[in-house]
Amino acid sequence: MSQASTPYSADSGTSPPEDEAPLRRIYHFGNGEADGDASMVQVLGGKGANLAEMSKMGLPVPCGFTLTTDLCAYYHAHDNTLPPDLRTDIEAAIKKLEAETKAEFGDNKNPLLLSVRSGAPSSMPGMMDTVLNLGLNDETVHALAAHFNDTRFAWDSYRRFLQLYGDVVMGVSHDRFEDILDDYKLEKKLDSDSDFTAQDWQHICAAFRDAIGEDTGQAFPQSPSEQLWAAVSAVFASWHNPRAITYRRLQNIAESPGTAVTIQAMVFGNLSGDSATGVAFTRNPSTGQARVFGEFLPNAQGEDIVSGIRTPLHITKEARLGSSMREPSLEESMPETFSQLCDVFAQLEARFHDMQDIEFTIQQGALFILQTRDGKRTTRAGLKIAADMVGEGILTQDEAVMRLDPISLEQLLHPTLDPNAKYEIIVKGLPASPGAASGKVAFTAAQAEERAGRGEDVILLRSETTPEDIHGMYAAQGILTSRGGMTSHAAVVARGLGRPCICGATSIQIDLEKGTALLGKHRLVEGDIITIDGSTGNVMAGKVATLEAELSGDFAKLMAWADAHRTLEIRANAETPMDAARARRLGAEGIGLVRTEHMFFDPERLFNLRLLLLSQNPTQERKAMDTLEPAQREDFAKLFKEMAGHPITIRLLDPPIHEFLPTPHDDITDLADALDMTERSLRSKIEGLQEVNPMLGHRGSRLGLTMPQIYEMQLRALFAARQDSAPAPDAPPIEIMFPLIMAGQELAQLCEMTQNIAREVKAREGDYIIGSMIEVPRAALVADQLAAHAVFFSFGTNDLTQTTLALSRDDAGRFLGDYTSRAILAADPFRTLDIDGVGSLMKIAVAKARSVRPDIKLGLCGEHGGDPQSIRFCHALGFDYVSCSPYRVPIARLAAAQAALLAAKSS
Amino acid sequence: MSQASTPYSADSGTSPPEDEAPLRRIYHFGNGEADGDASMVQVLGGKGANLAEMSKMGLPVPCGFTLTTDLCAYYHAHDNTLPPDLRTDIEAAIKKLEAETKAEFGDNKNPLLLSVRSGAPSSMPGMMDTVLNLGLNDETVHALAAHFNDTRFAWDSYRRFLQLYGDVVMGVSHDRFEDILDDYKLEKKLDSDSDFTAQDWQHICAAFRDAIGEDTGQAFPQSPSEQLWAAVSAVFASWHNPRAITYRRLQNIAESPGTAVTIQAMVFGNLSGDSATGVAFTRNPSTGQARVFGEFLPNAQGEDIVSGIRTPLHITKEARLGSSMREPSLEESMPETFSQLCDVFAQLEARFHDMQDIEFTIQQGALFILQTRDGKRTTRAGLKIAADMVGEGILTQDEAVMRLDPISLEQLLHPTLDPNAKYEIIVKGLPASPGAASGKVAFTAAQAEERAGRGEDVILLRSETTPEDIHGMYAAQGILTSRGGMTSHAAVVARGLGRPCICGATSIQIDLEKGTALLGKHRLVEGDIITIDGSTGNVMAGKVATLEAELSGDFAKLMAWADAHRTLEIRANAETPMDAARARRLGAEGIGLVRTEHMFFDPERLFNLRLLLLSQNPTQERKAMDTLEPAQREDFAKLFKEMAGHPITIRLLDPPIHEFLPTPHDDITDLADALDMTERSLRSKIEGLQEVNPMLGHRGSRLGLTMPQIYEMQLRALFAARQDSAPAPDAPPIEIMFPLIMAGQELAQLCEMTQNIAREVKAREGDYIIGSMIEVPRAALVADQLAAHAVFFSFGTNDLTQTTLALSRDDAGRFLGDYTSRAILAADPFRTLDIDGVGSLMKIAVAKARSVRPDIKLGLCGEHGGDPQSIRFCHALGFDYVSCSPYRVPIARLAAAQAALLAAKSS
Repeated sequence: MSQASTPYSADSGTSPPEDEAPLRRIYHFGNGEADGDASMVQVLGGKGANLAEMSKMGLPVPCGFTLTTDLCAYYHAHDNTLPPDLRTDIEAAIKKLEAETKAEFGDNKNPLLLSVRSGAPSSMPGMMDTVLNLGLNDETVHALAAHFNDTRFAWDSYRRFLQLYGDVVMGVSHDRFEDILDDYKLEKKLDSDSDFTAQDWQHICAAFRDAIGEDTGQAFPQSPSEQLWAAVSAVFASWHNPRAITYRRLQNIAESPGTAVTIQAMVFGNLSGDSATGVAFTRNPSTGQARVFGEFLPNAQGEDIVSGIRTPLHITKEARLGSSMREPSLEESMPETFSQLCDVFAQLEARFHDMQDIEFTIQQGALFILQTRDGKRTTRAGLKIAADMVGEGILTQDEAVMRLDPISLEQLLHPTLDPNAKYEIIVKGLPASPGAASGKVAFTAAQAEERAGRGEDVILLRSETTPEDIHGMYAAQGILTSRGGMTSHAAVVARGLGRPCICGATSIQIDLEKGTALLGKHRLVEGDIITIDGSTGNVMAGKVATLEAELSGDFAKLMAWADAHRTLEIRANAETPMDAARARRLGAEGIGLVRTEHMFFDPERLFNLRLLLLSQNPTQERKAMDTLEPAQREDFAKLFKEMAGHPITIRLLDPPIHEFLPTPHDDITDLADALDMTERSLRSKIEGLQEVNPMLGHRGSRLGLTMPQIYEMQLRALFAARQDSAPAPDAPPIEIMFPLIMAGQELAQLCEMTQNIAREVKAREGDYIIGSMIEVPRAALVADQLAAHAVFFSFGTNDLTQTTLALSRDDAGRFLGDYTSRAILAADPFRTLDIDGVGSLMKIAVAKARSVRPDIKLGLCGEHGGDPQSIRFCHALGFDYVSCSPYRVPIARLAAAQAALLAAKSS
Repeated sequence: MSQASTPYSADSGTSPPEDEAPLRRIYHFGNGEADGDASMVQVLGGKGANLAEMSKMGLPVPCGFTLTTDLCAYYHAHDNTLPPDLRTDIEAAIKKLEAETKAEFGDNKNPLLLSVRSGAPSSMPGMMDTVLNLGLNDETVHALAAHFNDTRFAWDSYRRFLQLYGDVVMGVSHDRFEDILDDYKLEKKLDSDSDFTAQDWQHICAAFRDAIGEDTGQAFPQSPSEQLWAAVSAVFASWHNPRAITYRRLQNIAESPGTAVTIQAMVFGNLSGDSATGVAFTRNPSTGQARVFGEFLPNAQGEDIVSGIRTPLHITKEARLGSSMREPSLEESMPETFSQLCDVFAQLEARFHDMQDIEFTIQQGALFILQTRDGKRTTRAGLKIAADMVGEGILTQDEAVMRLDPISLEQLLHPTLDPNAKYEIIVKGLPASPGAASGKVAFTAAQAEERAGRGEDVILLRSETTPEDIHGMYAAQGILTSRGGMTSHAAVVARGLGRPCICGATSIQIDLEKGTALLGKHRLVEGDIITIDGSTGNVMAGKVATLEAELSGDFAKLMAWADAHRTLEIRANAETPMDAARARRLGAEGIGLVRTEHMFFDPERLFNLRLLLLSQNPTQERKAMDTLEPAQREDFAKLFKEMAGHPITIRLLDPPIHEFLPTPHDDITDLADALDMTERSLRSKIEGLQEVNPMLGHRGSRLGLTMPQIYEMQLRALFAARQDSAPAPDAPPIEIMFPLIMAGQELAQLCEMTQNIAREVKAREGDYIIGSMIEVPRAALVADQLAAHAVFFSFGTNDLTQTTLALSRDDAGRFLGDYTSRAILAADPFRTLDIDGVGSLMKIAVAKARSVRPDIKLGLCGEHGGDPQSIRFCHALGFDYVSCSPYRVPIARLAAAQAALLAAKSS
């Protein structure tokens, strides 16, 4: 055991900080040994843990040691100070390093130089600080020059150190140093850094030192120990810099424990011609191809690649040949080192079971690995890598399934912009529904329908959409609105329809009368072509080339593996045979939600529905029903045919009446005629049906019970369609579902209504079962009463979220962003299920329901049905299925498989 | 055990109906014996149970038997049929009755006649049907005449039977019979029924029989058994007649089990000069005075009193002397019977521990008690009776407190006429229900309802009321009738409803067709305003000034007893010093809810609040705050002074922004000027702040966090006012309460805001505590997270009901009535807490909160704070206080005492 591993209490005599057991706080690695390993990510950070692992594997890693994340927590809990006795421990660790490297920290002959780098449990590339070449001062710089017999290298290293240290530790702005460099270049007429001589760098060093003194009023510290202590503190401090905090919030990374700090002997890629530095992936992160992929720079330090000062060279010959680059690849210029690198890659993949992203340095022909981590990749590459690695025996199928991010699959399912296409972005909005689409602009749903009818591609451009626009949205290739957020009507419907959509592009001004729109400075006339990218929110003028989705190959392979593990059934929300067919293609095993109101949006049907809702006498009512019933029957029959053999859940009419009624600006002449009313009295009747809070109003089953003619008509159409479609004897029953239920008696009375109609039309035994939506808090609280009548529950978590949080989806946009960024809510509760609130109610409902009906079928329909975290929750509650929009089905399949695998692992 | 008590299974061989254990279904009483007793109200109904008890007590009760309420449930569950084998049981019961009465059912010499009367567990006077004199037919009528040697009596009885049976059993309209009588009177020039001879009644009987045959196509049944079976069925059926259903809904009476039916040997008050019928109370039901109070009619049957055909006579001499009546009282005309009656009264009060309301008949000098029940009374009388009975040793203080209906206390708070007001009395009637009221005259229940619906005060003026008028009586402020006595329908119902009422104002003539009335010489048109004083019987033209109630005497005595038992603290919701003072007078111990938004409704403040909400720049904002802050500070200071030494809970601004903004029709010129905006852009800004579901929108603490200037201003005003009002050192801290909280972090951030302001203004230690409203389901579900920051919770059950049931109070009117009458909801959830739903959430919240903060203070503010059932629930949950509107404070005090007593009893 290393002497650096003394617990707090042992050699300082002070007691350990409260709440912390004495812990080892320094972990050594190097020379084929290490105190830690890859499993200790929480303690050593990703970088420290993997360096330890690589050292144990015998890979060429510069010796060093890691200060644990606990010290970061200590630092921030103690007014930005480290335990004073840590100095002694660090000194001991340095001693060990000196012995291993045969160099001495601050020595005048062979000075040991150090890198001081951050490394958190989750990768946060570039967000925290790093100090390199630490240990140089006005004396050791000469020793370094002498030791390597390279004065220019020594002064170059010193100026790098002065700049980083000045910036990171002493707070002198980065630009201050760049200005000095630029002025010097101008003065000396030097083109690039490589033109600098040793003298030039020496001048620069003097100028940098002076700048530090001037800006801070403090001298640059000459003592290497003082440099180290200050650098370690600064790197711990950088855990709390604003960009790191923002990054953690955006990436959902925990604030605790913090970052580790790794201190390592420097190796130099900037030493001579056979020195270099590079970054490489073990496979191609764009395509997944199993070939080394990366860049390197001869005679450079790592930061030179990242900063883009010089153009890096290819690592493989193949890559160089595929480009216009003349300079030789690493494979060509240093074939032995390249081969050594490939060997390291193979060992790393075998060890970490994933594609690796590494940093390496070659010092005078000797290869050093400075870092390895799982590499970021495109979804397409991820699929290929996972599939290939199963083939290569690196991964099991389970591991491959766990490896993928379900949400990322969405990228694959929609057309995407051709990465080679050139375009100009004219405005930007919210990326509300993914995919790219081009088409002629239409300003109204009617125009959109008309153009689509002529076979044209259309983009529907509206200030915002309403349920009356559904037809136009359906007809369009994509939707663009100037108002509304990610959960606006346009966004929700577009995601449901699988149409690319951009919302809230606020710099668009539409002039409906003139049929023109201003998109920023770009003026559009109806019929002009634009392209929208719903994955980024970018709007482009003209047609931009797109690529179609590819759902076979690796995708199909991975999904099959996922399906084999999944226990949750995945259904889709769909109303039309076309949607149903798409859902089936994407792997849906049934329909979990048919929103029957969508069947009324056709103008003629809407007219008749209005007649039914506003009828003045039984004759008018009868007349409306006689038109609506056969139409619904036909719709249902087609859907049943498309989904033959698969379960299908029909939700009876849900929205408040007034959503179907004309608005004050609509022409109501025909309607008034048909109702035998004056326009004036019709308007006043319609006005009287407006509601203060429609979400909490006279809708759903409340309408079904108090205006029974609507549900009775729907039920008759449903049973008739069942008879029309002549199902196989073993066909699953129709699942009839009542919305907005809040009481046992309510459901009981609707069951009675259903049974009466079933008797009346002679529905067959087993033709149907009855279930309840759970979307009102009270329904969850009296779920035992409901389960007495319901054979299944479907949790309508969109509405349940609205009611449980008293949060209107239409209005929450004004403050919801504020609420998530202030961490009042962990996430947008309409996207990811609010486990603490809505989830609690679901648990209560499930327990109560099972107390009465242990085998009750449980499902979820709503946006959350396509959200992986929410799916995991449903799996844990023992749900039977989730239902989501067709395009989310693959996500749900994968997420459900992962939920099952995780549960199996933890049980 | 009587042979009539055979269980279902025993003598018919059929099995008992499902879900029902074999039960005794016929209970006999009479001759000092009975199968049942007073405790069996659920089985025998109130009438049947008390008849059994009186029989056991040896009181003079005609023999009879009661069919149980289970049979009513059976009847309605089996398509309106009774168990066929019940016939045998009834026959056996009749045999027993024949033996006891020595008369025979259908006999040609001494025919046994029966009364068939309903009697539910809860009293529903006049709501269901009754058949009297059953057993008469074309033969037995002669036997009856011969037996009593009174032909007129026999035909009078027969015509009564024909009319009731024709109406109740055969469905011939009441008016049909009245028309025949009226025509006959006209033809024969007869003034009143008493002028009819035996021959006249015989004619009438023939005409009634013919009418029945004509209208129904069926002959009136001559068989007494058939009559009885049909009458029993009809009385069970009348449980479901519309007026009974309405009455139960209004009175919150359960639908189950139903009514019992009591069949009793007839006794005749219409037999001769020493026969009579009457109704009496053991004490005065208006004043509570401990004197017999009632009316009787010589030579009459009970219905004659109720129908108001003849003016009844007084029972006591004292009462007669106090009126202008010349006819002798019962005390004078039949002193022995009167004395016997007084003796019965004393026994009944001793047995039932309450004031009794009885029906009696004197047949040829012999007294029979036909019914006894706890008498309805005015609240004032109730208080006096309870207080007196404690004094008399009949009740303990606990029993007296339990005896009162908390809701009824509201009546006491009704105003009385200002003694200094000048007015002219235009007519006088009987003071039937106390209190004074003014309003526009309505001549029908429908008119009354319509005007009340428009928010107008209404006085319902009718010749007499019937059960069908209940709706109008409910809607009216007061009731005035030209006919009927102190025990008429109008009087009984008005006292129950707590409405002032004057009956029998005989000099009123109503012309329904013209919509006018003559009150003496004063001519009224529908809609004219009058004032009635139900305590004196005076009717005044126009509106007369009124005074608030006097709350000393018996009220104070009972409330003191209640307070001694109560553990819940009672607070009031109040904003102004005047409201606070009223609340204190009514016994409030603190303020549980100051709705600070009420302080902004003054036009100038509203203008400045609008400036603050819409401000375009910090200068405008500052200016608005500089006006609003001192105003709020002054309001708070006055309130603190008024409530010195008592706790006071301040809720910061709650409603959505747009409630404070101008509507489209408002003039906004000044506002636009002050904001330096064009009217057009101001309107568009206001438009943009409208919400789809304001109840679930950007309001409460959501506004407080995202527009912090408002809450910060309120907090500064609050702390400053605290300092201004210089509280005693031991004064309770201000309770600051945040509305619409849904997450722990939300409350945490508001606590931080409050602490910052407190520091800034140097608020003193102990000046304030912070609490959370629980009015969003999620708040209840994460109550443990909230309790980490909140020292108290106040359940805002109005909003919690809206969100838990997804029920907008503004919109629910369209179907809520339907939902309660269909028994989907047990009661209006905005009036009485929905225990299953909202109550479940409250339980969860309390348990979670106590797990974190065991001593958390718990209160409720909202309508339910004045509802006895809801208060009982809060008591059971261990709440610290409830807060209600000032006028409900006495109700809450009494209800809280009853809750404590009930809990003590059951523990």
